[in-house]
Amino acid sequence: MKEKPLSSLCTPALVVDVDKVKRNALRMIERCQNLGVQLRPHMKTHKTLECADIMTGGSRRCIVVSTLAEACFYADHGFDDILYAYSLPLDKVERCADLSERLDLFQILLDHPQALDELKKRPLRDGRLWHVWLKLDCGNGRAGVLHSQPEAISLAQAIVGTKGVELTGVYAHCGNSYNCRGVEQIQAVAQETTDLTLQFMEKLKASGITCKSSIGSTPSCSHPVKDMGKLSEVHPGNYGFYDVQQSVIGSCTLEEVAVKVLTRVIGHCPHRNQLLIDCGWCGLRLLSMTQEHGRVEPISGPLDYSKFPLGSLLTLIPYHSCATAVMHPVYHVHSEGRLLGKWIPTRGW
Amino acid sequence: MKEKPLSSLCTPALVVDVDKVKRNALRMIERCQNLGVQLRPHMKTHKTLECADIMTGGSRRCIVVSTLAEACFYADHGFDDILYAYSLPLDKVERCADLSERLDLFQILLDHPQALDELKKRPLRDGRLWHVWLKLDCGNGRAGVLHSQPEAISLAQAIVGTKGVELTGVYAHCGNSYNCRGVEQIQAVAQETTDLTLQFMEKLKASGITCKSSIGSTPSCSHPVKDMGKLSEVHPGNYGFYDVQQSVIGSCTLEEVAVKVLTRVIGHCPHRNQLLIDCGWCGLRLLSMTQEHGRVEPISGPLDYSKFPLGSLLTLIPYHSCATAVMHPVYHVHSEGRLLGKWIPTRGW
Repeated sequence: MKEKPLSSLCTPALVVDVDKVKRNALRMIERCQNLGVQLRPHMKTHKTLECADIMTGGSRRCIVVSTLAEACFYADHGFDDILYAYSLPLDKVERCADLSERLDLFQILLDHPQALDELKKRPLRDGRLWHVWLKLDCGNGRAGVLHSQPEAISLAQAIVGTKGVELTGVYAHCGNSYNCRGVEQIQAVAQETTDLTLQFMEKLKASGITCKSSIGSTPSCSHPVKDMGKLSEVHPGNYGFYDVQQSVIGSCTLEEVAVKVLTRVIGHCPHRNQLLIDCGWCGLRLLSMTQEHGRVEPISGPLDYSKFPLGSLLTLIPYHSCATAVMHPVYHVHSEGRLLGKWIPTRGW
Repeated sequence: MKEKPLSSLCTPALVVDVDKVKRNALRMIERCQNLGVQLRPHMKTHKTLECADIMTGGSRRCIVVSTLAEACFYADHGFDDILYAYSLPLDKVERCADLSERLDLFQILLDHPQALDELKKRPLRDGRLWHVWLKLDCGNGRAGVLHSQPEAISLAQAIVGTKGVELTGVYAHCGNSYNCRGVEQIQAVAQETTDLTLQFMEKLKASGITCKSSIGSTPSCSHPVKDMGKLSEVHPGNYGFYDVQQSVIGSCTLEEVAVKVLTRVIGHCPHRNQLLIDCGWCGLRLLSMTQEHGRVEPISGPLDYSKFPLGSLLTLIPYHSCATAVMHPVYHVHSEGRLLGKWIPTRGW
């Protein structure tokens, strides 16, 4: 089959530069090897098999997911050693038990004693153990028990003391690195999260508990600090694609962003000095968007419409690729502008 | 099969109260019958067969869609008389030709002479005509030729003068009704859009052209003005579901909103006086959202966590149901809290 150019696509279309994805993935693999830390890439941004293959270096092992839909999708396609890194939802215990009994290694995460109680009520078959990570909040302020609270240690002890349950590790997401600008600030957050996590591991050790440790976020893992080598794992995810937000933070350059939204000019509005494009809500930087329309204005001066005839292609770099990708039921994959095929993501929860 | 309660759903889940949808749809049908205007409901909000059946009163005829994916989805399932109400994208002419040759009545919309040129290059088989609506901008300021510009009349004349093409109607979306607060303001926009459209029809008539006319938006069609009876059609869409935004505008009451997002408490954060819920970016009113987490705060005072144990259900009313629905690959349909089944929307473009 003759390879088609990007311009043959109906728009709007999410296009993925597979060479950039491979480069971004390889750089992260090498970075982790140099640090001496296990990379457990997060699948939440792309949710596809193909990108997971690239990010795991083909092993199909050792991944993180954000939904059970992702966990099942990857389990159904030969992936294993899957961490469902989401504070165990009590309506999903049975589906987690199924995955734990089906896979070699399915791991869950919790941050509340009540979730542990639910695990007790559902012992796994064949003497299998629930593999549990304790979610620690090291300043990110979303999910997790706060690192400084005594409840964090007592919950770890409760997990260890529960029959049929294993404390696999301690997991912290340094999402506060998204507020950073530049490598220095990123590394300050990376250092702080690493320090707090390692201090917590020391406290655990003092009470006789040893387990793995993991921190993650694309900014901190794109510019890791040396001490991250003392952790067991890191779990960044967005870096496969990157996006404008990551370039603003300082995780990457704009050239390293592997995804774009291809759109076409569908209207000329000289009475408003605007173009209309066929791309709506997609998390992008534009004047305004509604469901299926985007309004594009020049920075200054009148628009030269002759440069943008109806049907002409524009490419937009997503501000947040996780949010943009989720709007697209298919990604169009290319190498140097030649279409290679499609990646179909999983959706839902 | 025993009907299950809503609480049996894994969350987050978009739930649709089918009784409310039927009531909203019936009220719009009756309103249009009383006005003496043809209702052509828009499918963009729900994108499902079942809701389209309800909104067309079972006829499966006379609908508007916002994407060709919707057009094909409905055409494949026995719908006809479909208007693709989106300024003809030049990369999609061939797909539109296919639909025009396949359906009894497939209609397109344009607002630029260049789009007309593309139609000339692709005459339809078997003597079929391209059925074209002229998109008119009556103050909404998105797509369309401005009603006051001479180009609007000359484009209508060019359509009429083109072999193989029929000027079916003039189409205006009064999306500026979304800026209204209350019935009075809504009716002022409805009146203005109606007046400008009817004046344009007079101008066309003066140049020997007669065709249909249509305006639409859920606010204006929820509180129509009498003169809308002089139009041929109206094309509201959101009203099947309605949402918080429509209640703020004054199109409906909050009780009439037929969709909710069911979510569960997945975390207690007493150190921040917050709950975490298992529902992220969905266009809802919450303190903050990330991909799979929402942060919920009390209006004032400390949160009483005992009232919201982990796993407890909360229901959120979408701010904009079009934007929320698009995040969900399945809708769960209930009547008085008993689950009846699922609606599967179409996606993509």
